[in-house]
Amino acid sequence: MLPQEIIRRKRDGEELNREDYESFFGGFLEGSVTDEQMTALLMASYFSPMSMDETLAVTEIFLRSGSRIDLSPVAGVKVDKHSTGGVGDKTSLLLVPILAAAGVRAPMISGRALGHTGGTLDKLESIPGFGVNLSPSAVVRQLGDIGMVMAGQSADLVPLDRRIYALRDVTATVEILPYIAASIMSKKVAGGADALVLDIKTGRGAFMRERAQAEELALLLAAVGRHFDLPTVGVITDMNEPLGYAIGNWLEVVEVTDCLQGRETPDLMEVTYGLAGLMIHLGRKAQSVTEGIAVARDVVRRGLAFEKLLELVRAQGGDTAVIEETMRYRNADAAIEVPAPRSGVLQSVNARALGLLAVELGAGRRQSTDTVDPTAGIVLAKKSGDSVEEDEPLCRLYSSREHDLVHFRERALRAFTMGDGEIPRTGKIFSYFDADTIVPWSAEHSAS
Amino acid sequence: MLPQEIIRRKRDGEELNREDYESFFGGFLEGSVTDEQMTALLMASYFSPMSMDETLAVTEIFLRSGSRIDLSPVAGVKVDKHSTGGVGDKTSLLLVPILAAAGVRAPMISGRALGHTGGTLDKLESIPGFGVNLSPSAVVRQLGDIGMVMAGQSADLVPLDRRIYALRDVTATVEILPYIAASIMSKKVAGGADALVLDIKTGRGAFMRERAQAEELALLLAAVGRHFDLPTVGVITDMNEPLGYAIGNWLEVVEVTDCLQGRETPDLMEVTYGLAGLMIHLGRKAQSVTEGIAVARDVVRRGLAFEKLLELVRAQGGDTAVIEETMRYRNADAAIEVPAPRSGVLQSVNARALGLLAVELGAGRRQSTDTVDPTAGIVLAKKSGDSVEEDEPLCRLYSSREHDLVHFRERALRAFTMGDGEIPRTGKIFSYFDADTIVPWSAEHSAS
Repeated sequence: MLPQEIIRRKRDGEELNREDYESFFGGFLEGSVTDEQMTALLMASYFSPMSMDETLAVTEIFLRSGSRIDLSPVAGVKVDKHSTGGVGDKTSLLLVPILAAAGVRAPMISGRALGHTGGTLDKLESIPGFGVNLSPSAVVRQLGDIGMVMAGQSADLVPLDRRIYALRDVTATVEILPYIAASIMSKKVAGGADALVLDIKTGRGAFMRERAQAEELALLLAAVGRHFDLPTVGVITDMNEPLGYAIGNWLEVVEVTDCLQGRETPDLMEVTYGLAGLMIHLGRKAQSVTEGIAVARDVVRRGLAFEKLLELVRAQGGDTAVIEETMRYRNADAAIEVPAPRSGVLQSVNARALGLLAVELGAGRRQSTDTVDPTAGIVLAKKSGDSVEEDEPLCRLYSSREHDLVHFRERALRAFTMGDGEIPRTGKIFSYFDADTIVPWSAEHSAS
Repeated sequence: MLPQEIIRRKRDGEELNREDYESFFGGFLEGSVTDEQMTALLMASYFSPMSMDETLAVTEIFLRSGSRIDLSPVAGVKVDKHSTGGVGDKTSLLLVPILAAAGVRAPMISGRALGHTGGTLDKLESIPGFGVNLSPSAVVRQLGDIGMVMAGQSADLVPLDRRIYALRDVTATVEILPYIAASIMSKKVAGGADALVLDIKTGRGAFMRERAQAEELALLLAAVGRHFDLPTVGVITDMNEPLGYAIGNWLEVVEVTDCLQGRETPDLMEVTYGLAGLMIHLGRKAQSVTEGIAVARDVVRRGLAFEKLLELVRAQGGDTAVIEETMRYRNADAAIEVPAPRSGVLQSVNARALGLLAVELGAGRRQSTDTVDPTAGIVLAKKSGDSVEEDEPLCRLYSSREHDLVHFRERALRAFTMGDGEIPRTGKIFSYFDADTIVPWSAEHSAS
């Protein structure tokens, strides 16, 4: 069947079968289906619903396009984690050492900064010397040796997704749930872990702005995981304001070292411990999620997680001295405070606005070929609900690329909404889900 | 603004403004907007409505992408015609000599076979020696000399449409009314005529299967014509069964010579005279459409139109001997009759099915790089409403490429529906329209 005929059928709302997808994607890989035909199918799929069978077919074809990592030589339960991306989200950097300290194997394959959200690889690379380009055999070896590894996706891990994602990124076809699911889950299944915990972010600073859309994606991902024998659970978490105080690569590493040394950012650690509890329970090092959370708190409190972080940095060639003493790191060339224009109570902090601002300061990429400034970013001084006096700093901006930061001040200010009313502190974790259900979050009732 | 941001806005149902289209199409022409981004915008436009302002902006940008033919050196009113394409539609070959005989200048820029429908250029090229690749200056010269010309679109006539159409053709994005309108009207405005008559086909063998869709396109085209100061009127005509008896390049030329020499095919000449009446009236050689039709009948009856056809063929290097005596032409290498399986009344003849079959016999193209077999095609022996005896031929198939036609017989048969009831003969011209209105066809009340 001609590619345009397959596109037309999808455009007209037909359900495509497995053979259709195999012929279309196979043709794409070998060159008989063009980039523009692939894009046409993607945009048609944005408008025409895709069935669960279609999502599974696409995921499986993605998966078969590359090699899979075999983690079976490594003893123990390997638990992976994925976040849909947020602003100031440094939970992966916290979770890997916490899990390793708790005896759960944590193989973490991460990505780069994307749009207004940060990327774990960029954060890791802000540590001088830290290498993220590990071969699959090096990943397996390090996971066996020290129980943890943080690496980038190798080129032959789901190459079809890599090529299709590059098209989606420039053709406004990113937001297609079944393709998001296929992209995430094919990589996670190929990564070889035994279980997966998802952090689906929702709110102004998330790709899924609406809660209902986040829940739809959550259930879809968990169902795909079950189909591929990868037990998948997760949480839906708040991404209206940045997570923690720091936004930007090195600035976030500093916040991580602070949290692992007793200076915990409350909202950041609430989400981190929730995820850690799920992962430690799935990794069979706790009888329940509640117990898993207790284990996580314990390894942090006793300094074991921080030691694991140093071990990870050392194993991957990074400079542990700057982790032990973050003040040794070079400062950004320019920094500026953003003072509050009035006294009152901070009502909200717009994560998306600050994420985009951080990109402009140099912390992220406008195009995939851009380099990042490791020193650039934003550190909040206040979070929503905090009382603020006039002229007290709301945040600080850092950059080694932009030397005149004055005109960024006004833009930063627009991300903060001041008011007078008290605002209630709410939990950052909204819900727990697995392939069958979504329920309000409570550690006691999750993953039973 | 990034191209993907423009795509996203269209995808989300926003109305784009002129600057958006100028930046996007301008980027496409200079290479900063890719084929896949253009395709994404097209597919988004398939699903998201486009306003009249958007249609006009696209048409104008198409028009400005190339050069325009200046026909002002040629005296008299120049009237052009466009058909949305059908099976067995050889009206252009009839109209050009009829108009020239009636004293109306007929500059006809035509296209190639597309999908299941034929193309005027392929029909002309079946005449040995006939050349269709004329420079704009040659077009102007011949129009001045003999009052008529039939040529292909030169490469610099709306190059943007040419490039975008190539994408639409392979990405299932042909059926977008505003782009159809922009494509047709930019070329017609660039062609330099003073008025335009449209033949919008509807039915099984047409691109616009549904009457409502054909009417929507008709009004859109006429409105765009008015905006660009090209008076545009037209008719909506029946394309459920093939027009006339012949389908295929040389076979259709033979039917044209028959019609101009007194052996008129009724349905074909009904449509031809309707269009001719409109064109002669617009060309100011008749006070009304009714009078225009009378003029057209007169020049055919007196043999003046046939003489003009010979003059046209001679002017463009064609062999007039085969036109004067069509039997001189080489026959197709293979021919076969398709006999009726039963006696009865022919209820319908599926134009689309026979159009596709003709392509397979060699009369059309599956890909734009295919060559056509000038001898291939189908000649109907019966039309719907005709009484048929068992084993009487329904049609004949011709091909110089396929030598074993037996297995085509079964497929041809499926295009004919036999029954017993009489079926009423209905007019082939359904409606007349201009930029303001669509009314049931009647020559007396059209183009007043």
